[in-house]
Amino acid sequence: MTKLAEFKALDPAQQQGLFLNMSSAEQVELLMAMPTAERKIWLRVLDPDDAADVVQGVPLAERAGLLDLLDRSARNEVSALMAYAEDSAGGLMSPRYVRVRPDMTVDEATNYVRRQSTRSVETIHYAYVLDLEQKLLGVISCRQLLSAQPETLVSALMTTDLVVVDEQMHQEEVSKIFSRYSLLAIPVVGNGGRMKGIVTVDDIVTVVHEEATKDIQKMGGSEALDEPYLKIGLFKMFKKRGGWLMALFIGELFTASAMGYFEAEIAKAVVLALFVPLIISSGGNSGSQASTLVIRAMALGEVRLLDWWRVVRREVFTGLMLGALLGLTGLIRILLWQGMFHTYGEHAVLVALTVSLSLVVIVLWGGLAGSVLPFIMRRMGFDPATACTPFVATFVDVTGLIIYFQLARIVLAGTML
Amino acid sequence: MTKLAEFKALDPAQQQGLFLNMSSAEQVELLMAMPTAERKIWLRVLDPDDAADVVQGVPLAERAGLLDLLDRSARNEVSALMAYAEDSAGGLMSPRYVRVRPDMTVDEATNYVRRQSTRSVETIHYAYVLDLEQKLLGVISCRQLLSAQPETLVSALMTTDLVVVDEQMHQEEVSKIFSRYSLLAIPVVGNGGRMKGIVTVDDIVTVVHEEATKDIQKMGGSEALDEPYLKIGLFKMFKKRGGWLMALFIGELFTASAMGYFEAEIAKAVVLALFVPLIISSGGNSGSQASTLVIRAMALGEVRLLDWWRVVRREVFTGLMLGALLGLTGLIRILLWQGMFHTYGEHAVLVALTVSLSLVVIVLWGGLAGSVLPFIMRRMGFDPATACTPFVATFVDVTGLIIYFQLARIVLAGTML
Repeated sequence: MTKLAEFKALDPAQQQGLFLNMSSAEQVELLMAMPTAERKIWLRVLDPDDAADVVQGVPLAERAGLLDLLDRSARNEVSALMAYAEDSAGGLMSPRYVRVRPDMTVDEATNYVRRQSTRSVETIHYAYVLDLEQKLLGVISCRQLLSAQPETLVSALMTTDLVVVDEQMHQEEVSKIFSRYSLLAIPVVGNGGRMKGIVTVDDIVTVVHEEATKDIQKMGGSEALDEPYLKIGLFKMFKKRGGWLMALFIGELFTASAMGYFEAEIAKAVVLALFVPLIISSGGNSGSQASTLVIRAMALGEVRLLDWWRVVRREVFTGLMLGALLGLTGLIRILLWQGMFHTYGEHAVLVALTVSLSLVVIVLWGGLAGSVLPFIMRRMGFDPATACTPFVATFVDVTGLIIYFQLARIVLAGTML
Repeated sequence: MTKLAEFKALDPAQQQGLFLNMSSAEQVELLMAMPTAERKIWLRVLDPDDAADVVQGVPLAERAGLLDLLDRSARNEVSALMAYAEDSAGGLMSPRYVRVRPDMTVDEATNYVRRQSTRSVETIHYAYVLDLEQKLLGVISCRQLLSAQPETLVSALMTTDLVVVDEQMHQEEVSKIFSRYSLLAIPVVGNGGRMKGIVTVDDIVTVVHEEATKDIQKMGGSEALDEPYLKIGLFKMFKKRGGWLMALFIGELFTASAMGYFEAEIAKAVVLALFVPLIISSGGNSGSQASTLVIRAMALGEVRLLDWWRVVRREVFTGLMLGALLGLTGLIRILLWQGMFHTYGEHAVLVALTVSLSLVVIVLWGGLAGSVLPFIMRRMGFDPATACTPFVATFVDVTGLIIYFQLARIVLAGTML
């Protein structure tokens, strides 16, 4: 049974509930499978902000056809919304909100709100007080209207200490403002304080999920997919992953050069090669912990650029403790194996010392690189989430090899090397 | 200047605004710095759900003292809320909501709502219709009340097709229900459908941020910090990171064993060692991409356990393409260097072939391991975000070394080995 057939099998009330709660990608899929007459009915069920998302979800050539299915006033609203970037406050907002005038009495305003509430408005929790030029003067809550004396003027009651967002603000910033002020809706204003619409908090829950997904995908070393994992085309997924994997691979090619530089040492002391994966991966893990924590703290606004020195101090301390822990474990492991199986030859103690010392230095180094790199990326204007974590691992791999073999040259000079 | 002194320097309206928008950790800090008389005033400003968070934020010995500062009815509300796990629906909810009876008329109900709205209730967007045993019968929106005929009965108007959550439901589930239904508030019910309180969407924005942060930190290979990066004690941070770093280190120790197993081959063909970091890191990066994408898709509910076979098919295809891309690049790089610098000796073509073939297999293997492991972890009842990504890297490192050297044994048999 196709999705459309499944949908048609439901009773009308269920259909409407299901349709309104679908993601816009699902709405597009269903609408485009319908004959035009039905498509028109269902498109008109949507609020203008949701209709705009649907129209933007179909190929360019079919957009005009969809817009034509709307009545004129809705078409104007939807076209206006489509002018905004999808991830801006303007792209999130609904133009349907409750408005009152400052010179109305509470009684008049309540009646006016009641009349508007029979139209489809996003929320009647707040009524916005606008002057004749649509400039936002204040806000009054439904609760205030209900509990005030009927003859009080709106202008005397309204809150003028407003939290507003600009129509161009990025949705991630908008979501931070919602977190900070615990509001149900925030007005969106354009040039000269003109009211454009409202963003409601239920849309923000979706935004927060979206932004976290993008950050997580970037931190995992690929581009943000922007589509569900099971839906995205395989070639598109290949492109989103291949670009970064290739960039990291080219970085890792330097490990071959670094190793080549120490080829003579490896030939003389093959035992050194055995610990290469252990050492570079420990540096990588330490770096990945540090960069993940710092990038997330930056995204949440807990850590700002100014804090870089405090972060470095914390990482030096933590890195030394973690390095000591791993170094000691490595030392014990090598000496134990040597005692039991004589695995590492006559200079095992010196080898153990080299590995152990390298672990201390490289775990510290990984933590430092992992915590400083996000600051550098942000300072240079990049999003620190962008593949920072695997990039740190690559950087720490190459430099870690150099540290390891240089330490080996010093510790093993005159014995193995 | 201390934080308390800074706070006292503000005017009373600013103080209240600032205090109510603080995180509960900040509220605790400020309250505990105040003398008792002031502490009492400010504690009473908080809604019961926020007061419960504050009381739970102080050491056990001081909780009773704080509770005593509340009036009896608030104390009862706060104590009841403290019985819930902080991350459950019960721990998030407010017991202050607007209630009406089914046999009221719209006119009576409106007056009743108006009276309740002067008390501090969380939202008057919805009024909940309860019977005499506090059982939830239906919900009626403020908008419905405003636009209905005054003499209509609430029971005739109310919606009975309700979205409710159980008091024990985990906050992550609650947030998914908010995303799905775009509601401003959801009622929380206990045994037998008894209404316990409401969760409002503004608290859910915080929950979504919190849950994403936990997942990101776990995917970066440490425990969730549960405190801001710059605030957490250094020793606590060491413990949260040290445990996982140590677990991964112990896993990586197997790379030394795997390398040891091929020591004779490395001694004969040192050139093989040069590509070890390149090969294992490429497998690790591919695995980390796959596991990140799959874990996030699982968290969002896009991928379920049943989908494992679809995921494997996608990863086989993507892995082969990515492997071919990297393998080809590796081949060209080695042959180019050989042509220019004669770096890799007389059997360079065979070495290039070994590395290139290994890259194809290991990138594919990394993608497969990275995508399947989250399913296994979830099937076994673990949270797949828990250090899965670095664990995949460790697993792919050890197995990747074995694949590489086994392929070398086959390709280089009779020439270098």
